[in-house]
Amino acid sequence: MDKNIRIIEIKQSVFAKNNVDANETRRELKDKKVFLVNLMSSPGSGKTTLLNALINELKNDLKIGVMEADIDSDVDAKSIIDHTGVEAIQLHTGGECHLDAGMTKVGLDNLQSKDLDLIFLENVGNLVCPAEFDTGACLNATILSVPEGDDKPLKYPLMYKVCGLVIISKVDTLKVFDFEVEKAIKNVHFRNPDAKVMLVSAKTGEGIKELADYLREQVKAWKGN
Amino acid sequence: MDKNIRIIEIKQSVFAKNNVDANETRRELKDKKVFLVNLMSSPGSGKTTLLNALINELKNDLKIGVMEADIDSDVDAKSIIDHTGVEAIQLHTGGECHLDAGMTKVGLDNLQSKDLDLIFLENVGNLVCPAEFDTGACLNATILSVPEGDDKPLKYPLMYKVCGLVIISKVDTLKVFDFEVEKAIKNVHFRNPDAKVMLVSAKTGEGIKELADYLREQVKAWKGN
Repeated sequence: MDKNIRIIEIKQSVFAKNNVDANETRRELKDKKVFLVNLMSSPGSGKTTLLNALINELKNDLKIGVMEADIDSDVDAKSIIDHTGVEAIQLHTGGECHLDAGMTKVGLDNLQSKDLDLIFLENVGNLVCPAEFDTGACLNATILSVPEGDDKPLKYPLMYKVCGLVIISKVDTLKVFDFEVEKAIKNVHFRNPDAKVMLVSAKTGEGIKELADYLREQVKAWKGN
Repeated sequence: MDKNIRIIEIKQSVFAKNNVDANETRRELKDKKVFLVNLMSSPGSGKTTLLNALINELKNDLKIGVMEADIDSDVDAKSIIDHTGVEAIQLHTGGECHLDAGMTKVGLDNLQSKDLDLIFLENVGNLVCPAEFDTGACLNATILSVPEGDDKPLKYPLMYKVCGLVIISKVDTLKVFDFEVEKAIKNVHFRNPDAKVMLVSAKTGEGIKELADYLREQVKAWKGN
């Protein structure tokens, strides 16, 4: 039996099983009226810093929980708790480069807050593997930080295909880097014409309110009221 | 049979086979007196831009070839050819998040230049998976760009453990970001006490000559003269 074909079969069966689990998670979230956002990006694009700013903008009218995935460290969950006061748990992937639906479900079952409206899942910093695994989230979002360059959607196609929301971050540094916002948006839409693109800076606060408003609308639509 | 145990066995057997292939590649490179550098980093940390600056510093006294790995696009190999004139080929991973020894060997066999002294392999932008696969390179190097933050070695342990050279890049932007160089170096050495750390800016040219000198010494030592 050809070895390559065998490897592909294993991988496809992993994906098929994962998709079943992810759909089941989404059905449960719909029943409970909880909106789960899967936030992905490169390492160091500012996921945690953005979440802190965003949660402080949203926490007065939505009950929020956070799941921080990391290979090894605990610094992100601690940062969320220190800066926002909402419940945050750390998921250690044990060296794995992504979260799948099963690991996400373990996280959801371990959140202790009741009646959450919105849960953020901060995935492992990686533009490749997390895009391959449906976590069961209601919205996939990715951050493209200005220092990374406006060509990233060309180089990591699947990440941009699976994300309904693309957040261009660190826009306060546009003066320092050769990053053309229009080109970046064009590249995003080349991969996914339906993606919503928003510009923010967690440092200056630019765009945070608009992003919070957008998420508020998404939560409302998901809850069906 | 427990399903989890079976998955681990497959993975370990993949690694074992890969290590055999990588060691074979390294032996061949030693015989041919060719030094192969496996350059890894997050997406957007500036691998290609740094390579362009570095190759222009080195190309008068060393014969250089470049293998650019990417999931889909061809922009990096084109950039190297346009900016340096050395031979560069693009390796498409077909969605894969890393290069292994077998893919690297295919690349090496496809370089057409004869009597190369130094080959750069630019791996897929990813701090997790490429660290797991020995490519057969003589030196593993990673870039930590200032905008990513000084905590990356804490969050991506294996990448820093396997790299003998850590290049802190985009140091011209130190004034814009909360990045402490001393803390970054301490975090690198926490993961790998023997790692050589160098600071560069491809934009201003700072540190490029020193990095080129360091690589020149490594090539000389590898060739045994």
